[in-house]
Amino acid sequence: MIKRKSFGSDNHAGAHPAVFRMLADANAGDELPYGADTWSERAATELRARFGASRAFFVFNGTGANVVGLSLLLRPFDAVICAQSAHINMDECGACERILGVKLLTVDVPDGKLTPELIAGRLGGRGDEHRVQPRVVAISQVTELGTCYTLDELARLGEFCRSQDLYLFIDGARLANAVAHLGCELADLATHADVLTFGGTKNGAVGAEAVLVMRDELATDVLFQRKQLLQLGSKLRFVAAQFLGLLGDGIWLANARHANAMAQRLADRVGSLPGVDIRQPVQSNAVFVSLDPGQIESLQQDWTFGVWDPAEHVVRLMAAFDTTEEDVDDFAAAIAATAVRS
Amino acid sequence: MIKRKSFGSDNHAGAHPAVFRMLADANAGDELPYGADTWSERAATELRARFGASRAFFVFNGTGANVVGLSLLLRPFDAVICAQSAHINMDECGACERILGVKLLTVDVPDGKLTPELIAGRLGGRGDEHRVQPRVVAISQVTELGTCYTLDELARLGEFCRSQDLYLFIDGARLANAVAHLGCELADLATHADVLTFGGTKNGAVGAEAVLVMRDELATDVLFQRKQLLQLGSKLRFVAAQFLGLLGDGIWLANARHANAMAQRLADRVGSLPGVDIRQPVQSNAVFVSLDPGQIESLQQDWTFGVWDPAEHVVRLMAAFDTTEEDVDDFAAAIAATAVRS
Amino acid sequence: MIKRKSFGSDNHAGAHPAVFRMLADANAGDELPYGADTWSERAATELRARFGASRAFFVFNGTGANVVGLSLLLRPFDAVICAQSAHINMDECGACERILGVKLLTVDVPDGKLTPELIAGRLGGRGDEHRVQPRVVAISQVTELGTCYTLDELARLGEFCRSQDLYLFIDGARLANAVAHLGCELADLATHADVLTFGGTKNGAVGAEAVLVMRDELATDVLFQRKQLLQLGSKLRFVAAQFLGLLGDGIWLANARHANAMAQRLADRVGSLPGVDIRQPVQSNAVFVSLDPGQIESLQQDWTFGVWDPAEHVVRLMAAFDTTEEDVDDFAAAIAATAVRS
Amino acid sequence: MIKRKSFGSDNHAGAHPAVFRMLADANAGDELPYGADTWSERAATELRARFGASRAFFVFNGTGANVVGLSLLLRPFDAVICAQSAHINMDECGACERILGVKLLTVDVPDGKLTPELIAGRLGGRGDEHRVQPRVVAISQVTELGTCYTLDELARLGEFCRSQDLYLFIDGARLANAVAHLGCELADLATHADVLTFGGTKNGAVGAEAVLVMRDELATDVLFQRKQLLQLGSKLRFVAAQFLGLLGDGIWLANARHANAMAQRLADRVGSLPGVDIRQPVQSNAVFVSLDPGQIESLQQDWTFGVWDPAEHVVRLMAAFDTTEEDVDDFAAAIAATAVRS
Repeated sequence: MIKRKSFGSDNHAGAHPAVFRMLADANAGDELPYGADTWSERAATELRARFGASRAFFVFNGTGANVVGLSLLLRPFDAVICAQSAHINMDECGACERILGVKLLTVDVPDGKLTPELIAGRLGGRGDEHRVQPRVVAISQVTELGTCYTLDELARLGEFCRSQDLYLFIDGARLANAVAHLGCELADLATHADVLTFGGTKNGAVGAEAVLVMRDELATDVLFQRKQLLQLGSKLRFVAAQFLGLLGDGIWLANARHANAMAQRLADRVGSLPGVDIRQPVQSNAVFVSLDPGQIESLQQDWTFGVWDPAEHVVRLMAAFDTTEEDVDDFAAAIAATAVRS
Repeated sequence: MIKRKSFGSDNHAGAHPAVFRMLADANAGDELPYGADTWSERAATELRARFGASRAFFVFNGTGANVVGLSLLLRPFDAVICAQSAHINMDECGACERILGVKLLTVDVPDGKLTPELIAGRLGGRGDEHRVQPRVVAISQVTELGTCYTLDELARLGEFCRSQDLYLFIDGARLANAVAHLGCELADLATHADVLTFGGTKNGAVGAEAVLVMRDELATDVLFQRKQLLQLGSKLRFVAAQFLGLLGDGIWLANARHANAMAQRLADRVGSLPGVDIRQPVQSNAVFVSLDPGQIESLQQDWTFGVWDPAEHVVRLMAAFDTTEEDVDDFAAAIAATAVRS
Repeated sequence: MIKRKSFGSDNHAGAHPAVFRMLADANAGDELPYGADTWSERAATELRARFGASRAFFVFNGTGANVVGLSLLLRPFDAVICAQSAHINMDECGACERILGVKLLTVDVPDGKLTPELIAGRLGGRGDEHRVQPRVVAISQVTELGTCYTLDELARLGEFCRSQDLYLFIDGARLANAVAHLGCELADLATHADVLTFGGTKNGAVGAEAVLVMRDELATDVLFQRKQLLQLGSKLRFVAAQFLGLLGDGIWLANARHANAMAQRLADRVGSLPGVDIRQPVQSNAVFVSLDPGQIESLQQDWTFGVWDPAEHVVRLMAAFDTTEEDVDDFAAAIAATAVRS
Repeated sequence: MIKRKSFGSDNHAGAHPAVFRMLADANAGDELPYGADTWSERAATELRARFGASRAFFVFNGTGANVVGLSLLLRPFDAVICAQSAHINMDECGACERILGVKLLTVDVPDGKLTPELIAGRLGGRGDEHRVQPRVVAISQVTELGTCYTLDELARLGEFCRSQDLYLFIDGARLANAVAHLGCELADLATHADVLTFGGTKNGAVGAEAVLVMRDELATDVLFQRKQLLQLGSKLRFVAAQFLGLLGDGIWLANARHANAMAQRLADRVGSLPGVDIRQPVQSNAVFVSLDPGQIESLQQDWTFGVWDPAEHVVRLMAAFDTTEEDVDDFAAAIAATAVRS
């Protein structure tokens, strides 16, 4: 049971009213299934335009989006270079290995961000039949550590990937938060990628993710891959409509900006407390902070949040689209009240 | 575009208002994700009780339910015996082969129903390392041809499977319609199975399916399998709540009874028309009927339905929970008006 | 224990002395591994020339050859059309499904041979994301029923496949026997295929199979696929040398002709005996014949052979490169002695 | 082309005469295929006795042995903990991921050897459905860096694995060299493992590996797994016979001792030369040594060996069963002649 506003994850929140309204609108009468409906067409058109993408496809969840997206880029003996902390590596129960048969070549990165130099270190063995062949660089934007690649960093990565005959894949489960942080357009991020995902669920949807394919020639297999990989909903209009709900009136961006602002407010409130150490730059809706072990235990009696790194007593505190200033201030007060005074 | 009430599939319909109401209820405040919420717990408890099952799990769609369900029963070298017409064989883009690596041993059955005798014919090669090992019998209830196994037929199948060391799996995408037709309880069907699925989507949900595991020892892997097989939603309460919406006030059964009745009404209206031949007993919400080829073409200008067997001019006409008597009568009148008078 | 010359399979025989001599020759000093040796180069050059192939690769066994060969032609959602009796379908423990994730679309054919008409019947659903996509037609030459496609039949199949955007794959585990029967060249068979295998093991090798890729663009992945699919030997010279042993002095063809002749001799000796019915045309080194059930039991006390179809009392009698006329005559005499006189 | 005795790998050598003699013996007459022959039975009996194993199975190559062996221990969502340098991780083109669908959790270890402490660091997330489940610890004995686990180290690993509900798998491609180094019995190593492999190829065979299963309950699937995973030879007697050739008269151990001694001799000859730095303890038939970059280039004009770590100029020099003292002394002299005198 969650007693107060959760800071555990942005998926503890419910859905935004605008999403519900659009779901209700989409419930008027019959529609063709599997994406051949007007809602899917409208939402895909809207997404293609905003991303500058060739095609847009709707799927159920983030893991599904990642696996379908990566399936478009890989031969069986290819490998994906990613951060050790990447969601595809740590949090998807080996779905990439099981379902795509692919090896992930991981890189330890303290801030969750790959660089051309780090990627270069995993490019060994190309052309050697005994070694998997690096083919895709997969990054998360926002990263799993709440950080964002700058547009310059993305441009460098994109250029490096092209120069090395590598595809660039972006896990965009929190892409909206990155746009909000960077003050850019979706297309500014997408332009560097070959395939990317765009998350709705953590941004106020009931459950809706999209896969964006930037070039026609990468999209030839996607309908079959999505179906075979268990990600094709029959009443797909109800997934697509959620995106229409978020995209209309700029709610997706307002939600992301608000969540980011609440995280920043929380960081501001607790950052200088004794025993409290902010461990990552706050560039999205997450605050990674180390606390005193006893303080963590004490806070968890009333508040919901997760321990990210038990060894270092780092907790991850996440704001959602519906986190209020009062929620933040109450939580900050609780942290202050339990702060260790030496 | 769908001009009038579709008879193409029960997934052309929208969702029942009770489902929407429960979704709205579930949107009150924060909940833990991935099924650790109160809605998932309530819905699973309800389903376990009704099925007499050990465990109940929520997934996104029917193909996902089938693959997750079968994953609990199979070693890599095992095979599934099923009807040639089975959804897992014909309509899931080879998901079982791709994702589970399993061979389907198919049997041609004109009415979609397996029998112990037909299964026995595919049990060759057991113990022979060169042959896949039959391990699961997968049936659909309702079948893809709209027919239902009787309780006696199910009992015979279950007994045969146990005697042959085979598991019995039921694809229950339309299980509600079977219960409505047979006038039995869900548990009366489930008792013969080892694992089965229970479809909400075609019965008035937005998108919600369940996997029922009848015995504890078969459920040890299911949480990992569901996650790895891309079927774990983060805001899972919104899947579970749909089942609560359907189960409350017996809406699931009322929906199924109504859809079945509408199919029967349609069959009654058109069955004796000239050139119209009902090809399968009407035991659910589907009517398989052969029409004159020109009549099919003519009807498709105004009505939505699919051709099941082009060679034999058989069309599949499906009623949904929201098909009205007027819809049926209008459509029947259209069929009558285009009927070929020799 | 095998008491007398086995008629059970051509893989019950040992290896031809010429194969052993070449193995001994190949054992002189060091060589680079994994095919970078002079023997592999020589054998591949020889095979490429004889088949008119772009590339030739050595693997361990027939199942490995089939899986590596097919891997070059398939996307994950593609299907292979083959005879129900095909080795890849019946005798490889589901390797294609497990390892390639592919569905086999089977056709019942009493003589083991596909035709354009039969293939056409399995081409439904192309372009439909719910269905696997037929991409490869896989035939066996010699078929599992001992029959051979004529050159005309092959030409028709090849032409049909090209016209339908299908690849043609030939399982050539007994391709030598087909060449011997048809009196043609290896290239006459290969020219109709995209990828094919060439069996050494059943033709006098210790254990050696080859994969022939007819066009450059299909061979880009083969080195990686062979390695990843467990079929790359380190001391590969010892696989390649076996082919050199068979190809030198035309031993491969002499072996195949002899085995075929022994099968024909056996068929001639027993074909008109009472109760003996030859069930397939004898076009290779196999004789499929039905016998009296009691006769089968009686013969199996002294002779080794397998029952192909228990229901019809059909046994498969196979000659090998080292079956002698005396072996055949002794076995024929035993069959005659046990023949049922009505 | 290899000009002089290769120090590149023990698989550059040919086969031992005793192996060839046994192959010739095994070529006398017909035998049942697929392991139902007397040679396979004899060799398996011999191996079971020496390892104290429940079952022994023959396969084609090391990668096949590893994949078949691991297949007996893993559910789809399990993970294997291994050294980053492990053959299964670095040198098998992702076969474990592709074919078993398994994630490898790697540990950087400078000497190739895992410890309980290192393993403990990768046990996070057990019971969490979002994470793969560590189930197998895979070590190589001899390691890829030429080092050997002592019997005490193995005992500690075995005990730790049992205490943590982990299986211990040993890649024994060079197990003979470990036995020779440790002066123990094969059973002394095997007793700590659940499944292990035993390499013949690098120890004087033409191409032969074995999988040893230490307990009955782990062997129930192995015949099917071996076949399905493309590792079942039809004329299996010719694989089994190679082991009989090696095991008779203790040739396997003499070969390993000799190769080890030649590596030690080489290390003794070059270890104190200027600019030459032995980087790993010499505990098998491998010498890892850093040389001057120019010296490497110069030596490679006449000698065959591989660069292991280009950044550190480390080369791997391997002796084989047929490396002579003269070969070693010639090569050592060449190294001395090119040594950099500062």
